[in-house]
Amino acid sequence: MAYEGEPLHTVLRSATKEVVLGHDQRFCLIGERINPTGRRIFQEALRAGDFSAIEKDVKAQVEGGADVLDVNMGVPLTDEPDLLAKAIRMVQELTDLPICIDSSVVEALEAGLAAYEGRALVNSVTAEDDRLAAILPLVKKYDAAIIALPNDHDEIPMEADKRLDLTGKIIRVATEDYGIAVADIVIDPLAMPIGADTGTSLVTWETMRRIRDEFGVNMTCGASNTSFGMPDRHTLNSVWLPMAMTQGLTSAIMDARTPQIVDAVKAADVFMNHDDWGMAWISAHRAKAAAATAP
Amino acid sequence: MAYEGEPLHTVLRSATKEVVLGHDQRFCLIGERINPTGRRIFQEALRAGDFSAIEKDVKAQVEGGADVLDVNMGVPLTDEPDLLAKAIRMVQELTDLPICIDSSVVEALEAGLAAYEGRALVNSVTAEDDRLAAILPLVKKYDAAIIALPNDHDEIPMEADKRLDLTGKIIRVATEDYGIAVADIVIDPLAMPIGADTGTSLVTWETMRRIRDEFGVNMTCGASNTSFGMPDRHTLNSVWLPMAMTQGLTSAIMDARTPQIVDAVKAADVFMNHDDWGMAWISAHRAKAAAATAP
Repeated sequence: MAYEGEPLHTVLRSATKEVVLGHDQRFCLIGERINPTGRRIFQEALRAGDFSAIEKDVKAQVEGGADVLDVNMGVPLTDEPDLLAKAIRMVQELTDLPICIDSSVVEALEAGLAAYEGRALVNSVTAEDDRLAAILPLVKKYDAAIIALPNDHDEIPMEADKRLDLTGKIIRVATEDYGIAVADIVIDPLAMPIGADTGTSLVTWETMRRIRDEFGVNMTCGASNTSFGMPDRHTLNSVWLPMAMTQGLTSAIMDARTPQIVDAVKAADVFMNHDDWGMAWISAHRAKAAAATAP
Repeated sequence: MAYEGEPLHTVLRSATKEVVLGHDQRFCLIGERINPTGRRIFQEALRAGDFSAIEKDVKAQVEGGADVLDVNMGVPLTDEPDLLAKAIRMVQELTDLPICIDSSVVEALEAGLAAYEGRALVNSVTAEDDRLAAILPLVKKYDAAIIALPNDHDEIPMEADKRLDLTGKIIRVATEDYGIAVADIVIDPLAMPIGADTGTSLVTWETMRRIRDEFGVNMTCGASNTSFGMPDRHTLNSVWLPMAMTQGLTSAIMDARTPQIVDAVKAADVFMNHDDWGMAWISAHRAKAAAATAP
């Protein structure tokens, strides 16, 4: 089986701005910092109703070059649906970038979708039947796109074959049972730490190539996972992403505050022939040079 | 046709050191700086019999992490065979790294090969009949390996098909007519400036994948060509090489003095599973940290 149609476009929108994921498009940076996980002070502020940290995080991701903002409000022992809806409303006031609504709590996803004005990306669903049945109707109801992970029962399959099988299942269920367009399914091929298994990137890349070639869908992943536990993670991440782009990755959920990684992705866009005549690359360089010599 | 044997190993040797190119080996950095092309002062010194600049260049390439040293003595209006033989003898005294003997003059290649103690890489031959007939007997006679470019009549084919045809011709002639082992043929898939044609890297990568899959031979190229005329060439080069490594590139002729590019290649080795458990990456990081804090 081989995908032979036109490149699939996952179209995301805020009230005023559109972003397109595609194998013929520039790489899409989903800024991941608006997330209290592992940030105790941010969590305490959110519990106290203080959302001011979000403003700073949004500004930093936008300035760093994010195309979409991931918003996660997973704070233990809070009303996450209420918190996420408030955060979504606030982020929409701060920026015109489309939003990726991120939660493991179905009610929070629904509250976030209800609060959002535009076409969101939902993060995420797995291949488990109960998760698909809970989340896909929301994706359809709110005309959103969905990130789907090819794993089930909380186990991450270490073989590309199994990931392909689960990808096929997700696409089948989403399109046939829920009427979601295949272009609105974004698969996360599962990037694992290289420090735990030195062959893991080869498996992820094989998964990417086969998903691209067989299904043609867009893909995203948490790229910084790959360097977990290793020294000089910025260099490793800045190298892994361009390598993954040659294998079919069209987007990543990443911290846009690291110029080394953002620049690497922009350079890779040039070589992938997604930056016509390198004009975006050249313009960015001129803007930096102008900023450096400004009085 | 698909190559199905064990990974081919191109074995290079100095008098005391062996370096192996292979699709299952760490990427091989061929340091390119020992070359007077475009360096007027170096050219004048060489004409006057002053070889002292070579010492500095060798030191810089070795310290930068080169695995092999490319030596070119193309100075107009000199006795290039004599110059190259002298330079080869000198470089052998300065380092134990194997040498890549680089000239477009057949007599210079022969003088260099005669002066070399070990198993050299010869740079280079094209697919033209007269060049093959002049250079391949030398490669066989001196038990060397050869870099071959799939172009003829001074024209660089812009289609992967044509480059594959010429690669097939070179391999056929070298193995059948001259008894050179296929493992000793290193193809340069021809990297062109992205500024001149924004689709050129895609053609080069297709060429690489098909050469790897059909012939299994090793490949090298002048990586810095790709960024010619563009701003921030170091970033572009440091991104292009890891991308090319996923397509089958096993070596590059490059200036080892730029840590950003050398580090990118070493990081890519980790993800390619050519650096067991990332031990080389971790050791290099520790050595750098120790050097930075040394009294």
